[in-house]
Amino acid sequence: MKFSPLVDELIQSLRCLPGVGPKSAQRMAFQLLERDRKSGLQLADALDKAMKDVGHCQSCRTFTEESLCPICGSAKRGHADTICVVETPADVLAIEAGGHYSGRYFVLLGHLSPLDGIGPEELGLALLEQHLAGGEINELILATNPTVEGDATAHFIADIAHRYQVSVSRIAHGVPVGGELEYVDSTTLALSFNGRLPL
Amino acid sequence: MKFSPLVDELIQSLRCLPGVGPKSAQRMAFQLLERDRKSGLQLADALDKAMKDVGHCQSCRTFTEESLCPICGSAKRGHADTICVVETPADVLAIEAGGHYSGRYFVLLGHLSPLDGIGPEELGLALLEQHLAGGEINELILATNPTVEGDATAHFIADIAHRYQVSVSRIAHGVPVGGELEYVDSTTLALSFNGRLPL
Repeated sequence: MKFSPLVDELIQSLRCLPGVGPKSAQRMAFQLLERDRKSGLQLADALDKAMKDVGHCQSCRTFTEESLCPICGSAKRGHADTICVVETPADVLAIEAGGHYSGRYFVLLGHLSPLDGIGPEELGLALLEQHLAGGEINELILATNPTVEGDATAHFIADIAHRYQVSVSRIAHGVPVGGELEYVDSTTLALSFNGRLPL
Repeated sequence: MKFSPLVDELIQSLRCLPGVGPKSAQRMAFQLLERDRKSGLQLADALDKAMKDVGHCQSCRTFTEESLCPICGSAKRGHADTICVVETPADVLAIEAGGHYSGRYFVLLGHLSPLDGIGPEELGLALLEQHLAGGEINELILATNPTVEGDATAHFIADIAHRYQVSVSRIAHGVPVGGELEYVDSTTLALSFNGRLPL
C-alpha cells in the first residue's frame, strides 16, 4: 500500500483509461483531490450513467442512450438511400464536420480482426445485411481506415453488398490536401496514381 | 451536440483530468464504452468514494480517509522527533521509497504563491507551528522543491522554526548521482559548490 486505501484504489482505477500510466494516474488523483472535487464527482456521475445507460443505435450501431441516434432519428437527412460504413463514432463526427455528406451511417465499432476474436458478428454485419436486403439502399460507401484490417473489412462488406446488387464504393486514398508529394509515403502515392481521375 | 447527450457529458467530464484534451477524452470515453464498462463503473465508484470520503491527516495533512495517515498512525517510526516538510503526497512516496528516512512528515499540499491565493493558511502552517510549539520536535528538514516558490516557502518555514528554537535544515541540491558535470546546469553546479562537504 502506497497511500491510504481509497486513494490507492482511485489511482489504480484511473489506470483503466487508455494512455494513463502510474505517474499520470497519481497526478490526476491528486489534482482532483486537491483542486477539483466537484469535477471529480461530476465525472463519477457521468461515468456511472454512461456505463449503465448508453447502448447502441438500433439502426447504425453508434453509441446512444435512445433507441435511435440523432442522425438516424432525423427526418431531415437528404440521402436516406446511401449508407456510409465507418469504424468508429469519431469517424462519423469527422465526416459530419465536413458537412458534404447527408446520407446515413453504419458504425462497425471496430474492424475484422480474427486474432482478437472480432468477426462479422461483432461488427454487426447481420444488421447491415438487413438494411441491404430491405431494398431501400442504393449505395454503400466504405470509409474504413486504410489499414490492412480496414481494407479486409471493406472487401468483406463489398462482397455482401454485391450479393444484394447494391452499388458499393470505397473512399479515395491519396495525397491529402495541403500535403506535399515529397513527404507522402510510397504506398499512398501508389494509391493516388491508381485512383487518378480524368480532367 | 456532437454525440448523444450522455456520451457528450462523459467526454466533457473527462476533460477535468489534467493533460486530457478533447481528442483524448473522446478516445477514453469510447474505449470504456466499447471495451471496458466494468472498469468504467469501478472508476466511477472509486472517484465517488474518494471525492466524498478522503480528507487530510490531522497530523501531517496528507490525503487519507482516516483521521491519521498510515505513517503518522504507525508506532514503529524511529525518529518521531524529526519532521520532513514536503510539497505533495507524491514526495512522501519518493522519500519512503528510499527507505533512509524514518521520521515524520508534514505535507504542505502546495507552496507559497500569493498570485494564486496560496498563503500560509492554505499550506496549514498553523498546524506545523502547533507541532513545533508542542516541544516534541527536535529537527525540521525542509524538502520543498528547488524552485523560486519552493525556496521562498522553505525560508518562510525556517523563520517559524527559529522562533521555536527548533534546528532546521534544507536538503542538499547539487549534481545528482549518475549525472555528469558536463550536462548539469550552472545554478545546480553553483549550489553544489556552496554545499560542499569536507572529506
